[in-house]
Amino acid sequence: MTVFHVSEIVDALQGVRQQWRELQRRALEPGGRDLPAREALAEVVETLKGVLFPMRLGPPDLRQESENFYVGHALDAALHALLAQARLELRYKARHAEADHREIDARALAAVRAFSQRLPVIRGLLDSDVLAAFNGDPAAGSVDEVLLCYPGVLAMIHHRLAHELYRLGLPLLARIISELAHAATGIDIHPGAQIGSAFFIDHGTGVVIGETAIIGERVRVYQAVTLGAKRFPRDAAGNLEKGLPRHPIVEDEVVIYAGATILGRVTLGRGAVIGGNVWLTESVPAGAHITQAISRHEVRAPAHERPGTAAPDAIATGAA
Amino acid sequence: MTVFHVSEIVDALQGVRQQWRELQRRALEPGGRDLPAREALAEVVETLKGVLFPMRLGPPDLRQESENFYVGHALDAALHALLAQARLELRYKARHAEADHREIDARALAAVRAFSQRLPVIRGLLDSDVLAAFNGDPAAGSVDEVLLCYPGVLAMIHHRLAHELYRLGLPLLARIISELAHAATGIDIHPGAQIGSAFFIDHGTGVVIGETAIIGERVRVYQAVTLGAKRFPRDAAGNLEKGLPRHPIVEDEVVIYAGATILGRVTLGRGAVIGGNVWLTESVPAGAHITQAISRHEVRAPAHERPGTAAPDAIATGAA
Amino acid sequence: MTVFHVSEIVDALQGVRQQWRELQRRALEPGGRDLPAREALAEVVETLKGVLFPMRLGPPDLRQESENFYVGHALDAALHALLAQARLELRYKARHAEADHREIDARALAAVRAFSQRLPVIRGLLDSDVLAAFNGDPAAGSVDEVLLCYPGVLAMIHHRLAHELYRLGLPLLARIISELAHAATGIDIHPGAQIGSAFFIDHGTGVVIGETAIIGERVRVYQAVTLGAKRFPRDAAGNLEKGLPRHPIVEDEVVIYAGATILGRVTLGRGAVIGGNVWLTESVPAGAHITQAISRHEVRAPAHERPGTAAPDAIATGAA
Amino acid sequence: MTVFHVSEIVDALQGVRQQWRELQRRALEPGGRDLPAREALAEVVETLKGVLFPMRLGPPDLRQESENFYVGHALDAALHALLAQARLELRYKARHAEADHREIDARALAAVRAFSQRLPVIRGLLDSDVLAAFNGDPAAGSVDEVLLCYPGVLAMIHHRLAHELYRLGLPLLARIISELAHAATGIDIHPGAQIGSAFFIDHGTGVVIGETAIIGERVRVYQAVTLGAKRFPRDAAGNLEKGLPRHPIVEDEVVIYAGATILGRVTLGRGAVIGGNVWLTESVPAGAHITQAISRHEVRAPAHERPGTAAPDAIATGAA
Amino acid sequence: MTVFHVSEIVDALQGVRQQWRELQRRALEPGGRDLPAREALAEVVETLKGVLFPMRLGPPDLRQESENFYVGHALDAALHALLAQARLELRYKARHAEADHREIDARALAAVRAFSQRLPVIRGLLDSDVLAAFNGDPAAGSVDEVLLCYPGVLAMIHHRLAHELYRLGLPLLARIISELAHAATGIDIHPGAQIGSAFFIDHGTGVVIGETAIIGERVRVYQAVTLGAKRFPRDAAGNLEKGLPRHPIVEDEVVIYAGATILGRVTLGRGAVIGGNVWLTESVPAGAHITQAISRHEVRAPAHERPGTAAPDAIATGAA
Amino acid sequence: MTVFHVSEIVDALQGVRQQWRELQRRALEPGGRDLPAREALAEVVETLKGVLFPMRLGPPDLRQESENFYVGHALDAALHALLAQARLELRYKARHAEADHREIDARALAAVRAFSQRLPVIRGLLDSDVLAAFNGDPAAGSVDEVLLCYPGVLAMIHHRLAHELYRLGLPLLARIISELAHAATGIDIHPGAQIGSAFFIDHGTGVVIGETAIIGERVRVYQAVTLGAKRFPRDAAGNLEKGLPRHPIVEDEVVIYAGATILGRVTLGRGAVIGGNVWLTESVPAGAHITQAISRHEVRAPAHERPGTAAPDAIATGAA
Repeated sequence: MTVFHVSEIVDALQGVRQQWRELQRRALEPGGRDLPAREALAEVVETLKGVLFPMRLGPPDLRQESENFYVGHALDAALHALLAQARLELRYKARHAEADHREIDARALAAVRAFSQRLPVIRGLLDSDVLAAFNGDPAAGSVDEVLLCYPGVLAMIHHRLAHELYRLGLPLLARIISELAHAATGIDIHPGAQIGSAFFIDHGTGVVIGETAIIGERVRVYQAVTLGAKRFPRDAAGNLEKGLPRHPIVEDEVVIYAGATILGRVTLGRGAVIGGNVWLTESVPAGAHITQAISRHEVRAPAHERPGTAAPDAIATGAA
Repeated sequence: MTVFHVSEIVDALQGVRQQWRELQRRALEPGGRDLPAREALAEVVETLKGVLFPMRLGPPDLRQESENFYVGHALDAALHALLAQARLELRYKARHAEADHREIDARALAAVRAFSQRLPVIRGLLDSDVLAAFNGDPAAGSVDEVLLCYPGVLAMIHHRLAHELYRLGLPLLARIISELAHAATGIDIHPGAQIGSAFFIDHGTGVVIGETAIIGERVRVYQAVTLGAKRFPRDAAGNLEKGLPRHPIVEDEVVIYAGATILGRVTLGRGAVIGGNVWLTESVPAGAHITQAISRHEVRAPAHERPGTAAPDAIATGAA
Repeated sequence: MTVFHVSEIVDALQGVRQQWRELQRRALEPGGRDLPAREALAEVVETLKGVLFPMRLGPPDLRQESENFYVGHALDAALHALLAQARLELRYKARHAEADHREIDARALAAVRAFSQRLPVIRGLLDSDVLAAFNGDPAAGSVDEVLLCYPGVLAMIHHRLAHELYRLGLPLLARIISELAHAATGIDIHPGAQIGSAFFIDHGTGVVIGETAIIGERVRVYQAVTLGAKRFPRDAAGNLEKGLPRHPIVEDEVVIYAGATILGRVTLGRGAVIGGNVWLTESVPAGAHITQAISRHEVRAPAHERPGTAAPDAIATGAA
Repeated sequence: MTVFHVSEIVDALQGVRQQWRELQRRALEPGGRDLPAREALAEVVETLKGVLFPMRLGPPDLRQESENFYVGHALDAALHALLAQARLELRYKARHAEADHREIDARALAAVRAFSQRLPVIRGLLDSDVLAAFNGDPAAGSVDEVLLCYPGVLAMIHHRLAHELYRLGLPLLARIISELAHAATGIDIHPGAQIGSAFFIDHGTGVVIGETAIIGERVRVYQAVTLGAKRFPRDAAGNLEKGLPRHPIVEDEVVIYAGATILGRVTLGRGAVIGGNVWLTESVPAGAHITQAISRHEVRAPAHERPGTAAPDAIATGAA
Repeated sequence: MTVFHVSEIVDALQGVRQQWRELQRRALEPGGRDLPAREALAEVVETLKGVLFPMRLGPPDLRQESENFYVGHALDAALHALLAQARLELRYKARHAEADHREIDARALAAVRAFSQRLPVIRGLLDSDVLAAFNGDPAAGSVDEVLLCYPGVLAMIHHRLAHELYRLGLPLLARIISELAHAATGIDIHPGAQIGSAFFIDHGTGVVIGETAIIGERVRVYQAVTLGAKRFPRDAAGNLEKGLPRHPIVEDEVVIYAGATILGRVTLGRGAVIGGNVWLTESVPAGAHITQAISRHEVRAPAHERPGTAAPDAIATGAA
Repeated sequence: MTVFHVSEIVDALQGVRQQWRELQRRALEPGGRDLPAREALAEVVETLKGVLFPMRLGPPDLRQESENFYVGHALDAALHALLAQARLELRYKARHAEADHREIDARALAAVRAFSQRLPVIRGLLDSDVLAAFNGDPAAGSVDEVLLCYPGVLAMIHHRLAHELYRLGLPLLARIISELAHAATGIDIHPGAQIGSAFFIDHGTGVVIGETAIIGERVRVYQAVTLGAKRFPRDAAGNLEKGLPRHPIVEDEVVIYAGATILGRVTLGRGAVIGGNVWLTESVPAGAHITQAISRHEVRAPAHERPGTAAPDAIATGAA
């Protein structure tokens, strides 16, 4: 007698897969996995971090006098690995058509080449982000501390790489790279978002920035800020319309404090300041300061509630 | 002379452990660790992901024509590893009683067997979750992208596995599996929560769903939504009463937008829509649309505040 | 012909690095990395967790009768590894001055020695945190479950270690250790914050606690609570003034429910209860219960919106 | 100033590589490594060992009731990995010709398919080898001990796999697999050697068996036995003639004791016994017992030589 | 169509396994692997090396002032791991009988306990071996070099550990440990061999020492020395008689030079010196010097043979 | 009660270590390991193999067009790692003297610098070795096969690196590197041996070449050849005299067949051929062919001995 009924479960699982594949109209044909791999992209990004900041994010035993050797070797390896993933995405996208693999591969190569040539510009933008964090946070001790510790900077490294791939027609690779940062930092920036130089996200957990958001230069946002969509228009057939501009435009030098929610294709004018927890679905003029109306509290007389031995009627928002 | 006073610190630490053990009334008896292990469960879940979605989350070199071999082998290994952890939980729970190890092990086996037979159903539910995400998000390019990238889907894979274990009397294993997803996604679903098919969490960071929550079919929630308890009743002796229904019931096809907080055993009727940031402690009828009353902003005249050179009286919610 | 123009990109990247180094006035001198390493500190913390809780967070094959051997060996290794990192931080800080390496190394040793002697006290504080979580959460099954599963406890282990290092003049090491916990839990506690015993954070995602916050004993907070600064004063030259007290003081036995935001150097008096989502920039007296004024909802007539086939004008806060 | 003159050495090494490539008439063309990889083949063999002996050389957590799942999954993975290496060998061999990659890949597939179908026969032969060792060695405690411990059995697993690949036109893969065993055991069997069932090599270090050797059934050899070539004929142009039969034929049930050297295309008749250290370049009839003529020793009078304080004229063969 | 006929091969392999199990009269019953594991024992030995020589073979970051902590922790871990393997061996040995697991486990514990108490003696013996190597080899620069580099010393560490296990009734564990050294050094010492202190093997490749060999103190041997059996007596039933003394006795201070072969239960008297390549099947008196009789060479007139362009009739012993 | 008496054994082991340290007159002072590390050197050699043969022994994903980047980066890393080991050796050697660390470190740097500049010459010599193997072995299919598979080539890569270190005053590093090859190939070449270009060792197991051996160009040797010392002269005080020339001189184009033993400071003249198993302690003239005198066999009448059922009086040299 067997311990588990493995064979029966295997058969049942095959049945469910079969249903799914029929639903998705997938042919059951021999062959391996045809999707880009999260692990492979994680390694590419890890290597590119070292390429961009060799002495601070590269291998610990690197020495300044041989930086270029390392950068060249690591760059070449990362680009070839990225090229392999790019091919997978483009072939996957073309899987239902009569695909010309040679043509697809040429497109993948062109995209990765273009990506590679943007790296110096990306490094320059990231330098501006690091400086913005250093200048904007009284707790920052040095630019190196910022690069090593700040989750907002990590999210921007991923975003600036992902955004290039998104622009170059590789949205799936871009999305995976964004989600790697989301998992590590709690900051969820869609790779489509356009973000100017010297962008600083402090603390960052819970920040969400949507696909068509446009952010100017020297903008600063705090944790739990949402730059989201207000509604999802659908076409006549009831399908979501894709690609429409639906997220905010944030002009230069705007500051958005923690927990603020800005929804829809509104514009925050240059230098505007949006206070914490503000809920905003309209544009605001340049230089405006928006703060939440004084929230009304009810203050009750002191009770004898104490943590651990709380009175039975304590008001709780915890989920426990 | 030694560099550090290691021996003294070792003794002092032993002293604190001794105090703790006395406080907890633990016997100092020889023996190894008697608790389930986070790492072991992480590996079990990793393997079960491959069992459930072999061609997308299984080993990269897998080929469709030999899926079943892989599924059978991996399933058997995962179930035996899970069985070992289940034994640890049940023995731990029974540690103060006169425990009959044979009887405990039989219960562990029965639970893991029952768990194993639910896997095909779990796969079916997860397929419905993947489709819900694909249909609900204009940015989703394909069902495969959803499975690979969406943190909400990852959280649901963990939850649907953890919920079975919770139901089968293994709440500690369930909790560890839930917390693995919480750490990776910022989504905190208690394994006790009952969730219907085609559930979609977008973005997800900060979502909290409590132990006795009941969620219907085709429900959609966004980041930072809380389905929490309003109060923690205590019994006559002042101890927290456990297991009482204290979290919301969410009926089919409800949508809850980002940052909304629903507290207590209230019911959101079928098809209700709860707007962003809404704070709700009462039931709402089917089909209702609840939106935050227009929040009052104060708009001040433009100032010359700029990030990095902010005016001294800028209102900030950052913690820096 | 080469596949990628690696040499050109390497040169361009060198150019950007050169610009940065000039901007930062860094000499190009041969030598290796001179910064503390995140990976090394992660390993130190991992080992110290085993030192503090050998039978629960130490190696799985450890047995109680030889705990002390393990604790002594692991402690010695962790302290020497920490000492190496401490030297790196102090030398880095002194990099622009005429530094006397021997004097710096002596300071590093003194700091790590003092740190090591605080470990028994830290263990005692953490025991109180574990008990607070167990007593404060109706879902907690045992103190061991709390230690294994609760992200709030993980964050406090990191914080209590990091806070000692911060106090001892090693703020960069402290910050890296805090950010490791932030990445794993979504809880962002600045290592400067002073936190009394029996502190409990439930769920935790999105919690932010600032550098000069002071928290008493037996305090409890829930997810997404911010204890932040209200404004960043600047000096005559326009530079941020550092180190000023700018975050709240929270007295003993205060409870702060999810999403509440407390800003500035205000005081929450002993036993106060702050309700969910409250926005607070003023002090409250001991024992007060602050709750959000009843938020006004607009309730519209039922519509036929359904997830996946939503009506075109659905109000959404998702960023998709 | 740099620590090492890395750039100069890099240039000089490039110069030497250039010379070599010119000597070998290799074009300098972009592209990756085009050779089979030792590590990849080591993994293939490791997996095939588990396929052949799942409960003894497979994964430690395997259970008998799900052997077939494991065998199927591992076999499929190993064959695809082997196929990739087979393509590399065949493309490499054809590198100077106008190669039709499709035709080459078809040949690789045919070879690996044929190989795969021989695995049951190989397992049967290896069973006979294990039994031969168990029956031939008074120190063997069980057949399982033999499979786990005996280097001669390890060498035969490698040889029987390598010999099939050699036969199927993949001599380079075969050679790499043989050398892996050589490194692990000191037993050097050329993959071309034909070896009958129930072959037993005891101790094994220093055994060398040449490419055209033919060995019957139930043969036994001891350490340091050589079955070698006597001369290497050359053709008119002075090149070594390849493939000529030049190693011994050993008929059924022959025993060859340690250190014996048999050279050239001689035949050891059925059941012959060759004594230790015998040097043999002629055929011997069936059933013959060949022993070294009594070796003449010179016995000198006792001296007072002692290890560690040896007399100055000690006769030594050590190389120290 | 599938690439390989995996299912057919899986079935065929199952058939062969079935035949083998019938031949071996093994029941097909569910269950895991019941044999000691080479990898587990390799790790035990690796740890014990660090226990025996903490500052030279222990972890690189160990410091002398905390040696004892390391030794205690590592020893405890190694002994428990060894105990698990000992149980496997004893249960395996008893697999055909009505086994009382509790009694078997008690025997395993007793054996490992006895083993553990021999470790200080073993360390003392190994110190004598290290000194013997240092004193006996003009090329040895220091005792530390000897311990780090000499394969003969590595083989003796394994042997002295394995011999204890052999004596304590765990011959399979002992054998596996011996074979690990054989693979690493080419030195094949049966764990049954009794070897006195200050034993030195130089170079070592090809040395074979049999199960019942007895070696005195301060003995020295060189590469390719065999201390073997001359004949394998069989009992009336034709089975090999096991355990009979059949290998040489080597008295104190004997030296045996490279390639010498000593066979059978002969005695080499105290202080005897056996020259290189000597073949010996008789006892020799104390103090005797045995050298090979002058070997007769044939010297032919010089030829014009050259490596790489050798004349066709070159005499070769290579197997190529 | 504890399972093992760990504390007692720890104390006893400390006692033995104490005895050893007193015997070796070692002070018990705090501090870490002061010896070069085998693992570190193994990694250095592994990297240098890639530096020397980037496309064949370097990383599998390397491409020819970026070889130099890899070579430069890997070389720099390997040299710094080697420098650290060189410092350890020189400081260790000077441990009893009043050591000036700065002066020692300068010597280490000078040695590693000189070593680095020899690498192009070493690569050239190794190319000649590869060609010699290809030309000398009828079984060699290509020069790449030779580099990938031949243990003799592996041994020479290690030797040519080790010999440079030996020459530069780092004999311990050299020895460790040699022993790494010895373990992998069974070929034991002392790093002091001087070996000319185009040296070929076939099969190799059991080859031993002593410290003061001098080998010319285009020499070929087979398995189990010894170039050893005949006697170890001692000085008046009875100590071994070190460094005296005591191993053979082998002139250009000599061939030495398997198992031959050449002892003492004899000279094998240019082009000499030494037959298999020859035992030689005298010089031979250029061009001479030395073969073993015809060995006398005794041929007995056929018996009925068979492996597995051997007659009781079979002559055996196996050690079983």
